Amino acid sequence: LTGVRRIDLNADVGESFGSWSMGQDLELLPLVTSINVACGFHAGDPQIMDATVAAAARAGVAVGAHPGYYDLRGFGRRKQAADPREVEQDVLYQVGALLAFARAHGVPLTHVKPHGALYNQAAVEEPLAAAVARGIARVSRDLVVVGLASGPALRAAAQREGLRFAAEAFADRRYFADGTLTPRGTPDAVITDPVDAAAQAVEIATGGRVTCRDGTRLALSCDTLCLHGDTPGAVPLARAVRGALEAKGVTVSPLHA
Amino acid sequence: LTGVRRIDLNADVGESFGSWSMGQDLELLPLVTSINVACGFHAGDPQIMDATVAAAARAGVAVGAHPGYYDLRGFGRRKQAADPREVEQDVLYQVGALLAFARAHGVPLTHVKPHGALYNQAAVEEPLAAAVARGIARVSRDLVVVGLASGPALRAAAQREGLRFAAEAFADRRYFADGTLTPRGTPDAVITDPVDAAAQAVEIATGGRVTCRDGTRLALSCDTLCLHGDTPGAVPLARAVRGALEAKGVTVSPLHA
Amino acid sequence: LTGVRRIDLNADVGESFGSWSMGQDLELLPLVTSINVACGFHAGDPQIMDATVAAAARAGVAVGAHPGYYDLRGFGRRKQAADPREVEQDVLYQVGALLAFARAHGVPLTHVKPHGALYNQAAVEEPLAAAVARGIARVSRDLVVVGLASGPALRAAAQREGLRFAAEAFADRRYFADGTLTPRGTPDAVITDPVDAAAQAVEIATGGRVTCRDGTRLALSCDTLCLHGDTPGAVPLARAVRGALEAKGVTVSPLHA
Amino acid sequence: LTGVRRIDLNADVGESFGSWSMGQDLELLPLVTSINVACGFHAGDPQIMDATVAAAARAGVAVGAHPGYYDLRGFGRRKQAADPREVEQDVLYQVGALLAFARAHGVPLTHVKPHGALYNQAAVEEPLAAAVARGIARVSRDLVVVGLASGPALRAAAQREGLRFAAEAFADRRYFADGTLTPRGTPDAVITDPVDAAAQAVEIATGGRVTCRDGTRLALSCDTLCLHGDTPGAVPLARAVRGALEAKGVTVSPLHA
Repeated sequence: LTGVRRIDLNADVGESFGSWSMGQDLELLPLVTSINVACGFHAGDPQIMDATVAAAARAGVAVGAHPGYYDLRGFGRRKQAADPREVEQDVLYQVGALLAFARAHGVPLTHVKPHGALYNQAAVEEPLAAAVARGIARVSRDLVVVGLASGPALRAAAQREGLRFAAEAFADRRYFADGTLTPRGTPDAVITDPVDAAAQAVEIATGGRVTCRDGTRLALSCDTLCLHGDTPGAVPLARAVRGALEAKGVTVSPLHA
Repeated sequence: LTGVRRIDLNADVGESFGSWSMGQDLELLPLVTSINVACGFHAGDPQIMDATVAAAARAGVAVGAHPGYYDLRGFGRRKQAADPREVEQDVLYQVGALLAFARAHGVPLTHVKPHGALYNQAAVEEPLAAAVARGIARVSRDLVVVGLASGPALRAAAQREGLRFAAEAFADRRYFADGTLTPRGTPDAVITDPVDAAAQAVEIATGGRVTCRDGTRLALSCDTLCLHGDTPGAVPLARAVRGALEAKGVTVSPLHA
Repeated sequence: LTGVRRIDLNADVGESFGSWSMGQDLELLPLVTSINVACGFHAGDPQIMDATVAAAARAGVAVGAHPGYYDLRGFGRRKQAADPREVEQDVLYQVGALLAFARAHGVPLTHVKPHGALYNQAAVEEPLAAAVARGIARVSRDLVVVGLASGPALRAAAQREGLRFAAEAFADRRYFADGTLTPRGTPDAVITDPVDAAAQAVEIATGGRVTCRDGTRLALSCDTLCLHGDTPGAVPLARAVRGALEAKGVTVSPLHA
Repeated sequence: LTGVRRIDLNADVGESFGSWSMGQDLELLPLVTSINVACGFHAGDPQIMDATVAAAARAGVAVGAHPGYYDLRGFGRRKQAADPREVEQDVLYQVGALLAFARAHGVPLTHVKPHGALYNQAAVEEPLAAAVARGIARVSRDLVVVGLASGPALRAAAQREGLRFAAEAFADRRYFADGTLTPRGTPDAVITDPVDAAAQAVEIATGGRVTCRDGTRLALSCDTLCLHGDTPGAVPLARAVRGALEAKGVTVSPLHA
């Protein structure tokens, strides 16, 4: 077997805002081992952050920050010509804010995963990747940087800052043969059938590869699998993925375990 | 002499936003011993916070947080019927964000002073005062709470949380005989003559009292005097205040010294 | 019979924001005769406004503006010490923006109903009521002002500006004996049983009175009934209300009809 | 003579926000014939819009809208991967809001000039240019679209929508030989010497060309010249430009005159 025998399951949570609700955080918490909490720039607010970290502390999942662009209306999904220095400072601000909630609840902040357009741009744009890594390192070099398994820029930047990098793959997103994700909005971009998602998760975790959109088998080694909570059917899908992994003997545990 | 012989001089700084500039922070830094840095809710952004804390670290002044309502357009000066629980969480968020910048620059965060309407409401509204103190205490019980000398609610709330309270007075604002400040917008609310401001500062610091708008002498004991930076003439006024205090033998030093 | 025989049914719609969804606008449209469209300050954005007005034009319902405080995070429900002059200008801005969408879709803008805390404050605070009416009148004196039936301030202010006032009552909110609404958050504030809501609607529309929380019968004359879309069960409730009104011979038609 | 003998002088105004001030609008008003008023997305708010349109009505200058990206913190200068459909709707919203203020003051809205990154992207990106033109046309086909003289995309898009296009050039910005502007931040990007700016204005207005950064003479025909108000020395520069144009016999008058 070439694949990992141990994997983290993570979910992006805390992405409601004010009176608007998003995601099924409470249902996902028992199914994952790590969460990435929105920090108020693309989603989330102090009320939601506090409640989310409290729930995570009770559930015993690892808490990470999920910083994004300062873009509530675009949900941080708009690609920007961002100034790297500003990105570094925006990341520092957001991670610092979430760290305060983690400390207040007596739980460690273990990792940081950029969100949306920042995640995608940092995977391939070196100045932005360096900015993200630097912003994280300015908070603490003990934080793990979570990024796209097939995105070389953030991995390299994390290493240059002396930060551990955790490669992320997706159970419910289709891959192109070059390792990039089929963009949202494209038909087939998202895998909605729990059986298909579970199969992809198992293939990645135990086989170290993924079957791409065009049938290509792509080598894909990862430390953590992302489960989305903002789609209908997300919870049964997460349950199927976790069940399939455990049935195949994969240990599901957080990055730090 | 009944007055204090040692006093802190503080200024609210970092209140620019994006491309908009406010205040004369760099000119004020050499004249004060503590600063209160806006945290992005009523003013300030990560770029300004980073630059402000960097400048404070170089200048050797004590760095505190200046959290306000989430109200950029109203500059945090609009009185709100705020939910105390939300205020607690908003304070925790903002102080946490600033703390990250302080740590990144290797300087301690020493104090927290609420801003604008939150400052005024927390001075007299008990639930809001309790919320502010609780939000600060959730970050650290080593933080000093700075509030209106004549505002009993925040002082009491800080003490209940086991936090040290520092009473603030104003060299450049007129007082009513009940110890409240003449509201901005009222004629005579702000003292613009450096000589008058210096005289008021000396009277407070060495005499432990202030001459009110109606001529009443009000007992006013304080630990820190606020100097504003957002008015024309603020810098000469600050210089006059500091000069007069030192000429009268008052030691100007930060709260923690 | 003392009650009206003709009534408008209105709903607050377009209250999603960016990626966040709220309400069941498309299901409500066939059940109401007027809508109040959020204008971007408390909810809504240009995308949602455009789509909402397009759908309203197709459905043939009367389109009105639903301006609120500039308070996305609080959904415009936070009471503020607002400056009346600013409120006037905020209303003018929001109504103007929505008017552009109405014109682009070839439908008239018929009315304006303030939202949330602004609605409640304008019902009883005269300076704020005058500001709302003045902001509306600056756009057009043909606009109908919709406000709380039992709120005298906005009615009087509208009349002073030469604007027609339409009194609004609620099928699904409990009234106090003084004509004010039981605040959200109080048990029983919201009527969730479609049968009860339909009964209250019929009592108001045909009897000109409502049975209050304490059993008092309160005279309540109104031109329009509000149906909410942001609660589970809102659509069946709206259907029950409309069905009951029509069964009792009440003509359901827009304010201008 | 190949140059125009009549030219409009315009300024971007109303770019303050809340308590933050920007520009020297009142000083510029007597020197220009048209203004472009920020609409609340990149700068400006209803208070500032109202005051600005009131001042423009008194001064007798032509009032236009200056819509930008929804990006207060970046002042609308951040290039975005914007969705054209959203841009169209954002433009419609902003122009509609400003139109309400113009009508309230009894003055026509004559033109629309996009701001910042939207201006620059619409000059060359066809889908974005089409979106801007479409958003304007949905308000009124009587509005003149103002765009970069050397930017073909917005000109073509305006024409396709049946809108008149006014070509804009800059007295105080250096041009590259391809007709694009030297980016802000580059040394020499901005001409600060009033004599040099006046000379460039005269060369453009009477000669129909501009001397570029590298000495090239570029043909540059324009209908309006932009004068900036957000730099120190902007007012004397504007005065020098207008004085020099009039001294050379150029009639300074608004686009519609």
